[in-house]
Amino acid sequence: MTSAPDYGRAFGLWRAQAPAWGAYTHHAFVEGLRTGTLPRANFLHYLRQDYIFLIHFSRAWALAAAKSDTLAELRAASATVHGLAHVEMPLHVELCASAGIDAAELEATEEAPANLAYTRYVLEAGYSGDFLDLMAALAPCVLGYGEIGARLAGSGGPYAQWCDTYGGAEYQGLCHDVGALIDGALVHRLGPDWAASPRMARLGARFATATGLEVGFWQMGLDGA
Amino acid sequence: MTSAPDYGRAFGLWRAQAPAWGAYTHHAFVEGLRTGTLPRANFLHYLRQDYIFLIHFSRAWALAAAKSDTLAELRAASATVHGLAHVEMPLHVELCASAGIDAAELEATEEAPANLAYTRYVLEAGYSGDFLDLMAALAPCVLGYGEIGARLAGSGGPYAQWCDTYGGAEYQGLCHDVGALIDGALVHRLGPDWAASPRMARLGARFATATGLEVGFWQMGLDGA
Amino acid sequence: MTSAPDYGRAFGLWRAQAPAWGAYTHHAFVEGLRTGTLPRANFLHYLRQDYIFLIHFSRAWALAAAKSDTLAELRAASATVHGLAHVEMPLHVELCASAGIDAAELEATEEAPANLAYTRYVLEAGYSGDFLDLMAALAPCVLGYGEIGARLAGSGGPYAQWCDTYGGAEYQGLCHDVGALIDGALVHRLGPDWAASPRMARLGARFATATGLEVGFWQMGLDGA
Amino acid sequence: MTSAPDYGRAFGLWRAQAPAWGAYTHHAFVEGLRTGTLPRANFLHYLRQDYIFLIHFSRAWALAAAKSDTLAELRAASATVHGLAHVEMPLHVELCASAGIDAAELEATEEAPANLAYTRYVLEAGYSGDFLDLMAALAPCVLGYGEIGARLAGSGGPYAQWCDTYGGAEYQGLCHDVGALIDGALVHRLGPDWAASPRMARLGARFATATGLEVGFWQMGLDGA
Repeated sequence: MTSAPDYGRAFGLWRAQAPAWGAYTHHAFVEGLRTGTLPRANFLHYLRQDYIFLIHFSRAWALAAAKSDTLAELRAASATVHGLAHVEMPLHVELCASAGIDAAELEATEEAPANLAYTRYVLEAGYSGDFLDLMAALAPCVLGYGEIGARLAGSGGPYAQWCDTYGGAEYQGLCHDVGALIDGALVHRLGPDWAASPRMARLGARFATATGLEVGFWQMGLDGA
Repeated sequence: MTSAPDYGRAFGLWRAQAPAWGAYTHHAFVEGLRTGTLPRANFLHYLRQDYIFLIHFSRAWALAAAKSDTLAELRAASATVHGLAHVEMPLHVELCASAGIDAAELEATEEAPANLAYTRYVLEAGYSGDFLDLMAALAPCVLGYGEIGARLAGSGGPYAQWCDTYGGAEYQGLCHDVGALIDGALVHRLGPDWAASPRMARLGARFATATGLEVGFWQMGLDGA
Repeated sequence: MTSAPDYGRAFGLWRAQAPAWGAYTHHAFVEGLRTGTLPRANFLHYLRQDYIFLIHFSRAWALAAAKSDTLAELRAASATVHGLAHVEMPLHVELCASAGIDAAELEATEEAPANLAYTRYVLEAGYSGDFLDLMAALAPCVLGYGEIGARLAGSGGPYAQWCDTYGGAEYQGLCHDVGALIDGALVHRLGPDWAASPRMARLGARFATATGLEVGFWQMGLDGA
Repeated sequence: MTSAPDYGRAFGLWRAQAPAWGAYTHHAFVEGLRTGTLPRANFLHYLRQDYIFLIHFSRAWALAAAKSDTLAELRAASATVHGLAHVEMPLHVELCASAGIDAAELEATEEAPANLAYTRYVLEAGYSGDFLDLMAALAPCVLGYGEIGARLAGSGGPYAQWCDTYGGAEYQGLCHDVGALIDGALVHRLGPDWAASPRMARLGARFATATGLEVGFWQMGLDGA
């Protein structure tokens, strides 16, 4: 497993303890994006499911804003929701349109079980737990895509746009911001010695479970069409 | 598909519109329970997963109590939680013990993805929606087991205890109570013409999604060991 | 009571049935803003409490985004959170600063009971209920300030800035948007005949309770200093 | 301030830091119960409001069950809900009946602002935070009534039944159980050194706020009739 990008201390600790991290970030779907050998039908299937994913993912970040404890947390979370709902989702709709999937087809997509499992796990973690539970469940997606993007940027080929988006400066900047938000939230709630708190084992377990669900999401992309 | 047991009007309507209802109530796992041909290893795998399921299911009923709108709803939901936590779960632990699975092994069971997907879907439906959303997501489990039990009661064979528990008077009584709770909650919130409300389409969709996740749960039982 | 501004159909119906609507929109605090006779100390007390209110109010709108059911609802709610957190709150901080209340004093403000009662009522309505419960609890604040602002705009005097902000085109536009969001959410969930649904009585009761809590908020401004 | 009853370590720490603890446990309403000088009209007003309070309080304990993290927590919380809904509330209805308040009058009681403020604060703390936030917000009521009851037991007079109920062995046993539940939940989440965790300051603040809202509840009893 390659070394962790510098997205903060919590990310480094959780990543090191998530057994499926390598299976997630080096999944055959990801390698297919990198080498360009991923069949287009699988990519389109993934894009359609990702549209539904992004809606629930935005809802989860909105829940983070609702559960935030400081004005700084509220602003960071709400900026992410805003970016997702008003920038990333319209871009996604465009990307799909250029791939021949129009808005009506997107809306009519039936949610795959692997998609549903992941998003509901994240949202429920947030509702039943607190801001930290939600961050630990959200982190594998946000920061894992960052790590994958950083590795795949410049790969060229049919999926160059995807690779360069997540490997690009804007998305990498977001990953650094989210990593800092998480580390700050840990200090705020558990003190400067947060890494030694028993909560870290439980948060690490959430991160690991969510990582396993990301593996399932890629696999759904590979299996479906 | 056999006719619906008389667990209330909403159940009849939702059941008729859930495409996977037959696949759920007549799943190969269920038929294996009926004929006694289900391999014991699969049954034990199911029992272990069902232990984790029951914890989250109890939490979902507790959430229903928290979201109840009348004292009658609060009492009905809290009686169910109490029954699950203080009667059904101890019975389940006993059943597992008699099958050679001790409490430590139960506690150490790793939650299967199909299990996680179903329970988190139900809980999130409850948190994001209201009491009715939660009821529609809970109904396929409670009432589907009732319908299966009613059909399998008296089958005899190695799984007679399981069949006779869910087909027995006590569990069937619970199903009638839950059906009445649901119909009453619909009247209370949507009026006597609730069956004509647009909310029914959305509640029916929740019921159908949860039914599909029940199919996945049986399949997990059949695949795992 | 003056006629309702045109912020949509639900607003008109709920407003007509909220006994305290006149007491809220014509409270002595409001009349003091209009005539300029409100003592400055009371206004500053109100501003400090309103800072805390805005944080929880932003959290409530974020919860609405989390509970939204369509992409349009998600976008409308997230735009409101973004506007509150990144525009209105910085403006509020500036307004306070120009009144001699610095950021540290704002942060150190102790939440008054009337403030706490109102914000927690709204948030709990949203958590325990659904999107509609949240909208009914949020509406008296958003739209009541619109109605007050429309009446007070151009009053001049020491509180002209406050009056003209809420009476201005931007805030009035927001009120029309929120009114349309609410009417649309009602159609989406209860159908075109939503006005005849029994849920309206319960939503109207939420609106009326929140209106009473707004009266308490003005009174807190008048009593405190 | 008298010394703390032995309801566990967290209670002792939080109690010592809640400025309003003495004002709550020695409120004029409480002293009126002890000496028998509390006017009956105020007691009846309190009883009617307490009926509504108990419904929301039961919902809050149900939320605790939904947010529990171990089977032991789930059982403890669900036993409390069950006791409240199936034992304490029927007793309360009886007590009211013997005081001439029938069920219909109880149901028709309008919730006082001080009542609403307290219950919604507790529920929102639970929804936005985690199990610990909910426990810290619930503790002043459960354990404060225990402390008051222990002091007032045997006072005799017209309110002897009230005093002896809360001072009796059954309720005192409940207080010890809840205290142990809280201490156990702290160990489980924050480790054996939980008392040194920064979360304690925030949990203590929740306890202190809820204590202040209890003062408001007694005052409502004293003011209303």
